[in-house]
Amino acid sequence: MTDIITIQNNVLTILEKVKMQLRTNPHFDSVKTKSNQNDLVTNRDIQIEKEIVAYLNEKFPNAKIISEEGFGNHPLDLSGLVFFVDPIDGTMNFVKSHDQFASMIGVYNNGQPLFGAILDVIQDQIYYGGPSIGAFVNNQKIPILADPPLNEVLITVSNHLLQSEMPKYQKLVAKSSGLRILGSAGIVFTRLLLGKEYLYIGKFKPWDLAAGLAIGQAIGINATTIDEKPINMIKSQLVIVGTRCATQQALDVISRV
Amino acid sequence: MTDIITIQNNVLTILEKVKMQLRTNPHFDSVKTKSNQNDLVTNRDIQIEKEIVAYLNEKFPNAKIISEEGFGNHPLDLSGLVFFVDPIDGTMNFVKSHDQFASMIGVYNNGQPLFGAILDVIQDQIYYGGPSIGAFVNNQKIPILADPPLNEVLITVSNHLLQSEMPKYQKLVAKSSGLRILGSAGIVFTRLLLGKEYLYIGKFKPWDLAAGLAIGQAIGINATTIDEKPINMIKSQLVIVGTRCATQQALDVISRV
Repeated sequence: MTDIITIQNNVLTILEKVKMQLRTNPHFDSVKTKSNQNDLVTNRDIQIEKEIVAYLNEKFPNAKIISEEGFGNHPLDLSGLVFFVDPIDGTMNFVKSHDQFASMIGVYNNGQPLFGAILDVIQDQIYYGGPSIGAFVNNQKIPILADPPLNEVLITVSNHLLQSEMPKYQKLVAKSSGLRILGSAGIVFTRLLLGKEYLYIGKFKPWDLAAGLAIGQAIGINATTIDEKPINMIKSQLVIVGTRCATQQALDVISRV
Repeated sequence: MTDIITIQNNVLTILEKVKMQLRTNPHFDSVKTKSNQNDLVTNRDIQIEKEIVAYLNEKFPNAKIISEEGFGNHPLDLSGLVFFVDPIDGTMNFVKSHDQFASMIGVYNNGQPLFGAILDVIQDQIYYGGPSIGAFVNNQKIPILADPPLNEVLITVSNHLLQSEMPKYQKLVAKSSGLRILGSAGIVFTRLLLGKEYLYIGKFKPWDLAAGLAIGQAIGINATTIDEKPINMIKSQLVIVGTRCATQQALDVISRV
């Protein structure tokens, strides 16, 4: 296995390049829809993913790459070193509000989180870390999180879930300090890492989760599927992410409705 | 009537003082609940409101002041010069996430908007303006907004409304580019002013609306009650705020459900 310092240096190097590109030129030339009218991809998502994938392929020729726009190599299992790449997470925000989007790379070894990095382009902040090295923002160590109860924390429930299973999530939101919806998994993860929110429920693709979970595990953030099974990093699923107490209380509320 | 330049200079002066205070010391010593568990007030809301009210009373001794924490003078009508003051809008965010809160002052003359200012403390940005002078952010003029249709814009619907009248607002959200919930009216108004979102529906107190509407009117943002009546700036009511096309299409969707 490649050592974690080499992985960290390379992931931060390519994300630094992405940051310079997106901050120098935050524009896009074309935008297309994918699975539905609000699932967007721009030429910049594609260009940036291609650059990240090419860089990782050069530096880690034996690794697998699972990526949002499909330029990775579509592995069927998670053996060995696997990079999860989301070039622009929150593409709708990138297009409409020009803020609150992120670039993310998560690195797993035989299915276990090793390292993650989330670049908040507009705020010029890079969050990174892993279970064995701790969590950092712009080179500052992030302390282990507190473990507050549900009624003391802000939470995010994805709009999709909120609308499809309203009674359940309505009750959950009512037991919390309030609901926030930002439109980017990466940005929500940065808020979890800093203790601004403590719970996040949504339907996630592997590249939505990989980086944030790898960093978050170092400071008390965990995740399971909504029916409390281990997450499968090959497929899309309903996941609850958060600190221990808020997560347990949320699962209690949801299971009772 | 006091001239608008004097009003602008004084409002910006006192908000600059508030900014320095909140950026130097972003902490609070005590927090209490008001109407419900998630309606908070800290010692900083009270301290800052008292300072703003004292400053305005000294500079504009004949004006009325309507303020969130009640240290204004509770006028029964809007004749003459009226200041609407919200010392910390988004107190829950101030307490839990230490970002996305605002200080707002709106100035009306005989019930008509004259001037408004919204201070985004953490981003260090001040938005201000009025119908006769235009809209500005940190002294840069904000252009007149485009008038995009509902399906091309991000919208905010307050969580309260979303939960109490789900079918109606579910349909509205589905016709838009997506829902965002940030937890501060002031911050949502700054996003409307920059064309990051184009529609905002919620139950508002006068101090939630006063500043944003005064600035917004200069660049194409208007508001009515949800049943298309003029807003009464003395009471709390359901309001739709936005640009013309998105607002009209939203009202069509809501009225049909």
